[in-house]
Amino acid sequence: MLYISSKDNQKLKMLIKLKQKKHRDQFGNFVLEGFKSVELAMENGRTIDSIFMSTTYYRDNLKKYKELAGVASERIYIVEDRLLKASFDTVSPQGIMALCSIEDFTFDKIDYEKAYRVVMLDRVQDPGNLGTIIRTADAAGYDMVVCTRGCADVYSPKAVRATMGSVLNIDILREVNGEEFIAYVKNLGYKIISSSLEGSLNYKDVSVTDKSVLVFGNEGSGIDKTILNESDHLVKIPIYGKAESLNVSVAAGILLYHFSPDY
Amino acid sequence: MLYISSKDNQKLKMLIKLKQKKHRDQFGNFVLEGFKSVELAMENGRTIDSIFMSTTYYRDNLKKYKELAGVASERIYIVEDRLLKASFDTVSPQGIMALCSIEDFTFDKIDYEKAYRVVMLDRVQDPGNLGTIIRTADAAGYDMVVCTRGCADVYSPKAVRATMGSVLNIDILREVNGEEFIAYVKNLGYKIISSSLEGSLNYKDVSVTDKSVLVFGNEGSGIDKTILNESDHLVKIPIYGKAESLNVSVAAGILLYHFSPDY
Repeated sequence: MLYISSKDNQKLKMLIKLKQKKHRDQFGNFVLEGFKSVELAMENGRTIDSIFMSTTYYRDNLKKYKELAGVASERIYIVEDRLLKASFDTVSPQGIMALCSIEDFTFDKIDYEKAYRVVMLDRVQDPGNLGTIIRTADAAGYDMVVCTRGCADVYSPKAVRATMGSVLNIDILREVNGEEFIAYVKNLGYKIISSSLEGSLNYKDVSVTDKSVLVFGNEGSGIDKTILNESDHLVKIPIYGKAESLNVSVAAGILLYHFSPDY
Repeated sequence: MLYISSKDNQKLKMLIKLKQKKHRDQFGNFVLEGFKSVELAMENGRTIDSIFMSTTYYRDNLKKYKELAGVASERIYIVEDRLLKASFDTVSPQGIMALCSIEDFTFDKIDYEKAYRVVMLDRVQDPGNLGTIIRTADAAGYDMVVCTRGCADVYSPKAVRATMGSVLNIDILREVNGEEFIAYVKNLGYKIISSSLEGSLNYKDVSVTDKSVLVFGNEGSGIDKTILNESDHLVKIPIYGKAESLNVSVAAGILLYHFSPDY
């Protein structure tokens, strides 16, 4: 184990840098917070680059540390409390963080025999919404989440936190060209169902038995027109009261469960 | 109209104070942000105490100002941009804000002939979740939202923002004693449906035709035991994947639409 007691420590500097997307892309790692997430990453066979614990956390959780024995001792860093606090003033660091490798892959490499129900997010810009939808997709039994170019980054601290660990449970593609992806999966026989305020069908009147891609759009402008034009169904959630619309992660929850696979 | 150019102005100080609950309770007012909300409050016949606009907003939106002619000129304040910015550094003030009166009432005064479908929130602590559920309840056509003591305050800036105006559209009771409220409405013939991870019934197998109260609980500890014991149905949303749970505002969205009134 290595102790970090200076803000100039290179490893600590890297941890802080990973708040920014360009550095996550550069190093191929993102930050997981909290013991549960770190443990889950290990259970799921993810590659952990290194673990950081505050001095207090390390002292109070020696038992938990033993459960992390899979990580080589020289990749565990104990950071002085004040340093960790100063580095993460805007969030509430849980005393333990890990650098976990980002697993990026391209959509033509996906095993579409296994990916039966897919969620596609078209330029969803709020990281909280993005993370919450990934969590819901995991809960509702979907096989894959596809994020187009223009979405918030899945691996930003806020999005990762909102997934509550689901970022580790479900296959995620990011920075996908939405138009190309839709063309590709249509060719494989998927039905495209797009959620749209201007949809012509009440979602309750639509059911899906085929392989499908369920699409949600940007908070302000909705789904890109090209994708709407290629869709097999445009479905809407009716508004009965005076509200103008629903929050996108709430709308996704309603539709993901309505169209969830039958178990 | 009155110009405010000093941070010591009493009216500006009051506006800033209303970020805190004790002052909202003291003055009986909360802050609405943005033109759309202010306009909606007027349409809904709510009492507007005063309106604040930044110098720039006022200059750029003279037309909109005319639409607010219902508010007496001496209750409209033009605030220097830098002052408004300095006072609301944590949010993005939209250049126009209003003080709107809080309409509090007690549950024994409600017209239960009109309140057919009720949502009850038991100690929901995140203001974003609280506001989002109010927005969804409005969209799904519910008649009333009841917040127990221990909920985040409906009239906090973050909760109000998350409602996207629905705080003005739907009757809201706050700081209610949950146990008393449940006893009261059961006596009036309402069915109590509680959402619980330990629920025995899949929500899809339950339908409601009577008057009902749909209950959601605290993000960590769920619904209070006393309320669970008084419930007619405990329903759960099944988890098909590896996620441990759903976000409470997503869960509320799924159930509110499933049990929404038939139009």
